Amino acid sequence: MNVYISTIGDEILIGQITDTNSAWMSRQLNQNGFKIVGKSSVADDKAAIVQGMEYGLKQADIVILTGGLGPTKDDITKKTLADYFGSAMEFHAPTHERITQYFTRIGRVLPPSMESQSTLPTKALILENKVGSAPGMWFKVENTNKIVISLPGVPFEMEHIMTEQVLPRLKEHFRITPIAHRTLLTAMEGESNIAKRIETFEDSLPSHIKLAYLPGMGEVRLRLSGYLHSSASSADFEALKLEIDQKTDEMHRLIPDLVYGKDNQTLASVVGDLLLEQNKKLGTAESCTGGYIAHQITAVQGSSAYFEGSVVAYSYLLKNALLKVSPNTLVQHGAVSKETVTEMAQGALKTLNVDVAIAVSGIAGPSGGTPDKPVGTVWLAIADVDRVETHLLRFGRDRLKNIHLTSVYTLALLRKFLM
Amino acid sequence: MNVYISTIGDEILIGQITDTNSAWMSRQLNQNGFKIVGKSSVADDKAAIVQGMEYGLKQADIVILTGGLGPTKDDITKKTLADYFGSAMEFHAPTHERITQYFTRIGRVLPPSMESQSTLPTKALILENKVGSAPGMWFKVENTNKIVISLPGVPFEMEHIMTEQVLPRLKEHFRITPIAHRTLLTAMEGESNIAKRIETFEDSLPSHIKLAYLPGMGEVRLRLSGYLHSSASSADFEALKLEIDQKTDEMHRLIPDLVYGKDNQTLASVVGDLLLEQNKKLGTAESCTGGYIAHQITAVQGSSAYFEGSVVAYSYLLKNALLKVSPNTLVQHGAVSKETVTEMAQGALKTLNVDVAIAVSGIAGPSGGTPDKPVGTVWLAIADVDRVETHLLRFGRDRLKNIHLTSVYTLALLRKFLM
Repeated sequence: MNVYISTIGDEILIGQITDTNSAWMSRQLNQNGFKIVGKSSVADDKAAIVQGMEYGLKQADIVILTGGLGPTKDDITKKTLADYFGSAMEFHAPTHERITQYFTRIGRVLPPSMESQSTLPTKALILENKVGSAPGMWFKVENTNKIVISLPGVPFEMEHIMTEQVLPRLKEHFRITPIAHRTLLTAMEGESNIAKRIETFEDSLPSHIKLAYLPGMGEVRLRLSGYLHSSASSADFEALKLEIDQKTDEMHRLIPDLVYGKDNQTLASVVGDLLLEQNKKLGTAESCTGGYIAHQITAVQGSSAYFEGSVVAYSYLLKNALLKVSPNTLVQHGAVSKETVTEMAQGALKTLNVDVAIAVSGIAGPSGGTPDKPVGTVWLAIADVDRVETHLLRFGRDRLKNIHLTSVYTLALLRKFLM
Repeated sequence: MNVYISTIGDEILIGQITDTNSAWMSRQLNQNGFKIVGKSSVADDKAAIVQGMEYGLKQADIVILTGGLGPTKDDITKKTLADYFGSAMEFHAPTHERITQYFTRIGRVLPPSMESQSTLPTKALILENKVGSAPGMWFKVENTNKIVISLPGVPFEMEHIMTEQVLPRLKEHFRITPIAHRTLLTAMEGESNIAKRIETFEDSLPSHIKLAYLPGMGEVRLRLSGYLHSSASSADFEALKLEIDQKTDEMHRLIPDLVYGKDNQTLASVVGDLLLEQNKKLGTAESCTGGYIAHQITAVQGSSAYFEGSVVAYSYLLKNALLKVSPNTLVQHGAVSKETVTEMAQGALKTLNVDVAIAVSGIAGPSGGTPDKPVGTVWLAIADVDRVETHLLRFGRDRLKNIHLTSVYTLALLRKFLM
């Protein structure tokens, strides 16, 4: 089944925002056996919206539109779709009730401009939006089996409606041949070096199994996808899933040092599971990452069971006052040194009253480097009551990238420390 | 002048990479007076490339293609364009010399796969690439004034050729009318309530000035764009810029309580500028945000000049040990209470040795709520040596959204506290 994605909004066309929605949708659709044949971005304008939709319908069975569903007057998508499909607009009680309840719960009165959000095309199947005001809409194109879906442009609202409503309905509406997927998650090694280590394995894969490299910042996901012929039975699918599992294990055995998890895990969730298992409490002492590692850890639901807290010590003063780094160490070796992060981690064990502590100090940039400690130099330490291990990391010049990479490496090395 | 952008590559269609090139190009083109009428992404496939280009040529005077120019066998754009424009391919000596010199400089021999990079369509004007191997190409569409431009997909190569070659040539080739933009940044109010407050202003705007609402999480940007007629002079453009500045000020006066900045500022950078101006040091005491506010503040380059650090206290123990919240307060009022955040902020002033401290404690969710303190309940306090102010915030059920919204509100309220 072919899908065409069209994003609506002047803000994308003038480059004010980067379209991340269509990449997310593409990954989800792809994993569920749909093929994306094209994408486009069009203006907030009736003619442009219709033209983009018709262009998509020529090439695909499903056209998904995102954006242009807000309550203000520059959003004209809903009206455009109603006209296009010859549909009346009507008050939709369940949507009105849901929006009213939402405003009541946050202690506010429904603004009059929100009223229009409950007026919806009668020919559309309404896709409930549990996390925002504008619902999605599902139109059947008359005399065809084709579908046009309209979703809000706010990423988490779009993701919610896609996951809860669109994907299940699409799988039901179209008879799609399922695809079996498994993903290995790796950290701290680049795509080309991984490719070299699994080259023989990759070359030996049968033609119905494909390997994709999905690189992220400091991480690479390796996804195996298994395809069935169109007349396959459900028994064939079970056999395929087993085959994919076996191939995944085989690939894992080639790079055990790089793999930290599978499928939907994250570095922070894997570390969290280990801490829970071992009944250990974690704390962090952060300088250059400024709280970002603590944020990664606490982004995981339930992390309060194993995470005590963090000291973000940007200044010398706090490194000494809260983490007990000796002034002598700071003066002699500098804040970015093996000695300082060692004392930071040991200090954090006591100050935060935890079993395991991590500490990082580095030069995030873009300025502040010296010839022997250029921008991107980071020291990290991991300590428990018995031992301390330290690592020197060297990254580039981009501040946010350095902060993110430090977090990835720290969590990946913490995982190994715990194992 | 209308521009259509088409990005080429399967990796964009399957969501493996997010297209950031077209947003960058759009900003540059828009600032220089070109209007982007649409964008699309197409597969690495001859028919798809031609179809995308022809679709663009129908709507625009200029079609810019990016991607598909690498030395590997799956890149077929160059050949497709040569065929489409009926052009022979020929060895291009200046390109060959440049590539050879480049490899010599980095101490490597020119790989055989690179030889093909110097074979180029004779009908194209070659756009030199000083930072990579594949040059850009500029084709004139016969019997029209239309232009097709093909650029490499590597972002910094594309950006280099756009800046050095494409934009100057386009401005020369077409007589273009520039557009004037100003953006007001607001926080803590929804799109529809803002729209109500500036409705009369919006309705009174002359037809050559447009207002766009660009909503984010907890923030809305309001962008005014001014357009000129095609025979406008540079004096007209200066007058238009003045008019847009005046309209921006007028809009600002209608919602002074919501506006925190302009154009390319961020909440964290605005707060940072205020702290620098007032020569004050800031610290944070975070519970439910888990370090995210400290991360937002330290994501700003140079923040070490005014940010001392943070205590992330997830547990009762640390709230007491590091922030001196009395056990009595915690037991009597709970961790999520006005009393606790007040003591946290006052404790942080001392522990972090700062002039201003912010403290937050809440239920990020998705679980952990109670009837009187449902998920999404957050208390925040801002304190200096003279006063403490507290706020009760109520958000929804999504953990990451609650964390982000808490950060937005805290920084926006901190800005007001400082002013």
